[in-house]
Amino acid sequence: MLLRRTASALLRTRPEILSVCPVSPVPFVRRSVYYPPKPRPFSTSVCLCKKRQKSLWLQRAEEGQTMDGNIEEILAPLRLAVKEQGDLVRTLKQEGAPEVDITKAVAELKARKRAFESKELSLQPKDDIVDRAKMEDTLKRRFVYDQAFAIYGGVSGLYDFGPVGCALKNNVLQAWRQHFIQEEQILEIDCTMLTPEPVLKTSGHVDKFADYMVKDVKNGECFRADHLLKAHLQKLMSDKKCAAEKKVEMENVVTQMDNYTQQELTDLFVKYNVKSPTTGNDLSAPISFNLMFQTSIGPGGNMTGYLRPETAQGIFLNFKRLLEFNQGKLPFAAAQIGNSFRNEISPRSGLIRVREFTMAEIEHFVDPNEKVHPKFPNVADLDIMLYSSKAQTSGQSAQIMRLGDAVEQGVINNTVLGYFIGRIYLYLTKVGVAKDKLRFRQHMDNEMAHYACDCWDAETKTSYGWIEIVGCADRSCYDLQCHARATKVPLVAEKPLKEPISLKFSLTYTHKTVNVVQFEPNKGALGKTYKKDAKLVMEFLSICDERFITEQEKLLNENGEITIETEGKAFKLTKDMVSVKRQQKTLHVEEVVPNVIEPSFGIGRIMHTIFEHTFHVREGDEQRTFFSFPATVSPYKCSILPLSVNQEFIPFVKQLSEAMTKNGVSHKVDDSSGSIGRRYARTDEIGVSFGITIDFDTVNKTPHTATLRDRDSMRQIRAEISELPDIVRDLANGTITWAEAESKYPLFEGQETGKLTVEE
Amino acid sequence: MLLRRTASALLRTRPEILSVCPVSPVPFVRRSVYYPPKPRPFSTSVCLCKKRQKSLWLQRAEEGQTMDGNIEEILAPLRLAVKEQGDLVRTLKQEGAPEVDITKAVAELKARKRAFESKELSLQPKDDIVDRAKMEDTLKRRFVYDQAFAIYGGVSGLYDFGPVGCALKNNVLQAWRQHFIQEEQILEIDCTMLTPEPVLKTSGHVDKFADYMVKDVKNGECFRADHLLKAHLQKLMSDKKCAAEKKVEMENVVTQMDNYTQQELTDLFVKYNVKSPTTGNDLSAPISFNLMFQTSIGPGGNMTGYLRPETAQGIFLNFKRLLEFNQGKLPFAAAQIGNSFRNEISPRSGLIRVREFTMAEIEHFVDPNEKVHPKFPNVADLDIMLYSSKAQTSGQSAQIMRLGDAVEQGVINNTVLGYFIGRIYLYLTKVGVAKDKLRFRQHMDNEMAHYACDCWDAETKTSYGWIEIVGCADRSCYDLQCHARATKVPLVAEKPLKEPISLKFSLTYTHKTVNVVQFEPNKGALGKTYKKDAKLVMEFLSICDERFITEQEKLLNENGEITIETEGKAFKLTKDMVSVKRQQKTLHVEEVVPNVIEPSFGIGRIMHTIFEHTFHVREGDEQRTFFSFPATVSPYKCSILPLSVNQEFIPFVKQLSEAMTKNGVSHKVDDSSGSIGRRYARTDEIGVSFGITIDFDTVNKTPHTATLRDRDSMRQIRAEISELPDIVRDLANGTITWAEAESKYPLFEGQETGKLTVEE
Repeated sequence: MLLRRTASALLRTRPEILSVCPVSPVPFVRRSVYYPPKPRPFSTSVCLCKKRQKSLWLQRAEEGQTMDGNIEEILAPLRLAVKEQGDLVRTLKQEGAPEVDITKAVAELKARKRAFESKELSLQPKDDIVDRAKMEDTLKRRFVYDQAFAIYGGVSGLYDFGPVGCALKNNVLQAWRQHFIQEEQILEIDCTMLTPEPVLKTSGHVDKFADYMVKDVKNGECFRADHLLKAHLQKLMSDKKCAAEKKVEMENVVTQMDNYTQQELTDLFVKYNVKSPTTGNDLSAPISFNLMFQTSIGPGGNMTGYLRPETAQGIFLNFKRLLEFNQGKLPFAAAQIGNSFRNEISPRSGLIRVREFTMAEIEHFVDPNEKVHPKFPNVADLDIMLYSSKAQTSGQSAQIMRLGDAVEQGVINNTVLGYFIGRIYLYLTKVGVAKDKLRFRQHMDNEMAHYACDCWDAETKTSYGWIEIVGCADRSCYDLQCHARATKVPLVAEKPLKEPISLKFSLTYTHKTVNVVQFEPNKGALGKTYKKDAKLVMEFLSICDERFITEQEKLLNENGEITIETEGKAFKLTKDMVSVKRQQKTLHVEEVVPNVIEPSFGIGRIMHTIFEHTFHVREGDEQRTFFSFPATVSPYKCSILPLSVNQEFIPFVKQLSEAMTKNGVSHKVDDSSGSIGRRYARTDEIGVSFGITIDFDTVNKTPHTATLRDRDSMRQIRAEISELPDIVRDLANGTITWAEAESKYPLFEGQETGKLTVEE
Repeated sequence: MLLRRTASALLRTRPEILSVCPVSPVPFVRRSVYYPPKPRPFSTSVCLCKKRQKSLWLQRAEEGQTMDGNIEEILAPLRLAVKEQGDLVRTLKQEGAPEVDITKAVAELKARKRAFESKELSLQPKDDIVDRAKMEDTLKRRFVYDQAFAIYGGVSGLYDFGPVGCALKNNVLQAWRQHFIQEEQILEIDCTMLTPEPVLKTSGHVDKFADYMVKDVKNGECFRADHLLKAHLQKLMSDKKCAAEKKVEMENVVTQMDNYTQQELTDLFVKYNVKSPTTGNDLSAPISFNLMFQTSIGPGGNMTGYLRPETAQGIFLNFKRLLEFNQGKLPFAAAQIGNSFRNEISPRSGLIRVREFTMAEIEHFVDPNEKVHPKFPNVADLDIMLYSSKAQTSGQSAQIMRLGDAVEQGVINNTVLGYFIGRIYLYLTKVGVAKDKLRFRQHMDNEMAHYACDCWDAETKTSYGWIEIVGCADRSCYDLQCHARATKVPLVAEKPLKEPISLKFSLTYTHKTVNVVQFEPNKGALGKTYKKDAKLVMEFLSICDERFITEQEKLLNENGEITIETEGKAFKLTKDMVSVKRQQKTLHVEEVVPNVIEPSFGIGRIMHTIFEHTFHVREGDEQRTFFSFPATVSPYKCSILPLSVNQEFIPFVKQLSEAMTKNGVSHKVDDSSGSIGRRYARTDEIGVSFGITIDFDTVNKTPHTATLRDRDSMRQIRAEISELPDIVRDLANGTITWAEAESKYPLFEGQETGKLTVEE
């Protein structure tokens, strides 16, 4: 039977379904950065983020990662509960218990883990958490981003980025290109978003990329079935009159929510008499809703297309061309930055769950026999907070580990994966993610697609709890094999068996004897049964891999027949039509289906994290907020502010602006009539890194000088107008630090500083 | 009656239709860069572009823009034919001839203009034209771009950019951001592609953005009706047996093609017995096909959405937020780079007419009373090839003019438009468009949307003829007014009537007496007739502008009633329900509906032009092709080539690669085993600007040096390894020229040069 679950659940558990491709077992659909654990709001109310505390990360490191005694006392029983359940799951698996029992036990394990993590989070320092309402007010008021189509009433899940948000986004992407594409010599490509149906049929999205929803029978309003049922049960449980055993039963339903079939969900909606929360009307039974936007390509109306739900497929489809571009050699990586689309039933949480979003994905293709990254030593000494699968199933907390140790101890599967984890860490912290609010969480066995050997999510701590912002999976050879089978185009690399014997460019090819397993079709029998279609069957049989053949051989022996599917048709094959042949072959070239390591970045989620981690309120002035964006991604590197509207300042403003443009330094002139303090506050609010003020000393004294102010410290230096553009460029590039600038130029503590506190 | 034409025709002619908005007359839909004159293939066969001839542009300039006597003799009668028809059109208009006669005469004028231009093109030097087949072979072979979904059979009109094309595209966009966003301090925004229906209803796209198509009744194959009918008639005319009068009749049909109604087209298909060109089957009657991709937003199925057909709408919808971000002040410009989608009936011509494409659009909002650009003097001295409306209707050729003179003489309407034309020219020539194959063509009266006061297209000469790659239109206040009316959100800027009386930041507001024209509703009468809907009517009446009111007043006086449409309903209003009131009002703040100057760039078309204008064949070796991309947009700035696979070269390759990465210089290491000449050829083929070779002198001598080669001249210098990354960065930035590098470092003419001609 086909177990159906919600898409978010499907994507992180081992599915038990038949597939359109003859690989078995096969996941429903690609795992992806866009389905992280559901946000878990803090149970405590949000509070102001004032001056940054000594980082939790450093504190922990210094304290040898022990936590305060009292806290540990509270957590101990929760840790134990996780551990016990983790042990139970392991035991069940070892004993070969029925799948249904294991699934239930795993759901319970996850629920206990959630309870533990949630408590752990709630015990952490409160001023670590941003005042989200205040932050969102700033983001909206300064048009960093805002709801799209607002003057037409708006559409939920769609956002427009204004000048500040757009510049930040461009810089985040530019930094990504510099950090990955340039430094790793990755091949960037740019594919279309419109995608014809067969591609997404192969990838599994057409059949399985769906959530259950229910509809208000009167007004048609739609709800996500699992969200609604959970909210409904939680409301019932919170009733004081709710009997204890009823409560346990309902808690159990919530815990098992991801495991229910469509029928089971339907029964539960009836049993608990769930109505529309907005109108009280009756609801339809839960139906499956595909999350892709469908359209029709071309005028004929017969080519169904979708907006891509992820960018990765375009890379797999171009594998042959990319391999050729790389002169046939492995390993190489390709990447794509672009928009993807998911028709969420109920989008929410700002940039976290939207209908149109920007992703950046890398596919690193590597010979499975050579999963070693030569540059791993460059990142081996990084100390990173890791939350291993083992820690999660035994009630431990995440812990800081040296990356090199993590690979050596087998916590991380191989150095390629380890290298990317290190590079992702460096990237995220470069663009503004706080080190102490970033961890890498390993997928547990039961949430990992079966073909993946290891999978780690970069998660950040936000006001929504820990959210996934980057996924990093070792996907083995799954994707290429699916498309190869569906298209009959071999997606393999050829590995010449070479033995260099001289330095004069010539190569010799040795040979190698290998065991080959193949289907041996009986043409006569097939032709007799399937006529013209026999050719299809034989084509299909010729491209199957060893694993699939061995599996089918077993079935053939057991049942006397197997069923294959190709080009939308099913064929029953009996023993007289097909057998399995094993032989030895001499090869001069070895064919390799590359494995794929896939780091997948959700740009909107990274931006949301940057907003939360860099948002501050000035000490002593709650109205003054600022974003401490790192200069690399800062939307504007510098502001240029004439002290007043005096005409004498204008030539200096113009001179500076032109010099900065020439230097490629983005800047913003604010020659409006507000006080200088008010204008600094306005530029701080949108995270402008530095500010230059032209004052009367600029005009009246030679050499002409102006003040340069650092946003975070609000300290100022004074330097010559002619030098300032270079100083700002170097500060923005990170070539010099503010401290270095202070040591080189005189500090300025004149009248403007005083004006900083004067509000209009 | 509603005249229907093909979308491409609609977009450049004055439409005669009723509109959903109460502005009258209203164009069908926005003009846009993506509907240029249809490509006109050269009648002569294509030939090789070898060494560039002295540019035609310069030749003409030197010869005082006279052409060779013989050529002029051939062109003279064609020029005269255009002029006579141009005069006829003018006369008809002056005499107030019926619209249908004018439309026919204009179509004939265009046909004559086409004949003249086509002859003019065919008489120009043949080696000016690229070998397109050869070029496209290179583009495909090196995966610059290629058909998308090829392993699934491909989808026409959809292309994927490979590493070289993607890098070129990124650089073209980055140069665009630097040239426009940074230098002009434009506000860049990033809006969603998914767009709900009401927005595109207002813009006119839902109702009018369509082409006629016919369908093969048996296999469903679709054809663009106008294209098919034209091809059919041309085939009939080319038959020797075709009678002269028949020929004239058919020529007339081709000339008037854009003017036919759906019924007229249907009759013509019957009259000429047009069948499917591929099967000979019968065809359906022509039907209108909307070119937008439709989808459904959200799970309810009741919110129709489309993929945006252009990026500009997002800017108009965010006008209020942008104005506020600019502190309420005009002028300011906003821009957007992003993908748009058009479901072409029959996409063709590579990147020229595709279904998904990248655009970059600027909307410069300006007070209509202050249409002056302060930076115009910066571009006034540019000499640009202009093809004015007057020249086109009088049979003259395009001519080179000083931009300042063009504005002074009224050829270009105002300095804002003039400034953008100058900036567009500078941008295009910077990224690789040849100066002598670039012209700005003014729209003729009859192809310009009625609300626009002036419109110029940047056109480039390619193997498809002159193609439009950038549009630059003064769109007056049209777009903002449409959305304001539809949403009832006033999209205006407030202009305080200020009179500065001191320098102390304070402003005084004077007042001003203005004439106000308003509808005066009779609430009683309206309420009686329209009950609840009376409110709708009154809301509508309150936001109408003077022009519309005056127009309706005339109709009210003539007919005693008018009909208005709002929120999808029509209301008949009689004289007792509404009157027009004229009064004087005192204003302290003036409300201004900004005018919009819109430069709109088609990135794919710009790239196609760059490919054609930079593609060359090495003299004496037809197999060796290269792209002379300017270093600014070059996909890779430099290659690093070890002379052979000798291990001793490796450390130097690594050192150079790391230093270049640090310098932000994109580069490509080619350590494969081909000869150095072969590898240079491979990097030339994808337009790598410079190449460094590590040879035995690098290894054996100190200081360690290597050769640096210039792609275009193939000349080489020798410099120290430690200096090379900075030299390449400066060359790529344009800080130094190759000639300067040659003067500073010793030329290298050693063994590698000799090897350049050795092929494997």
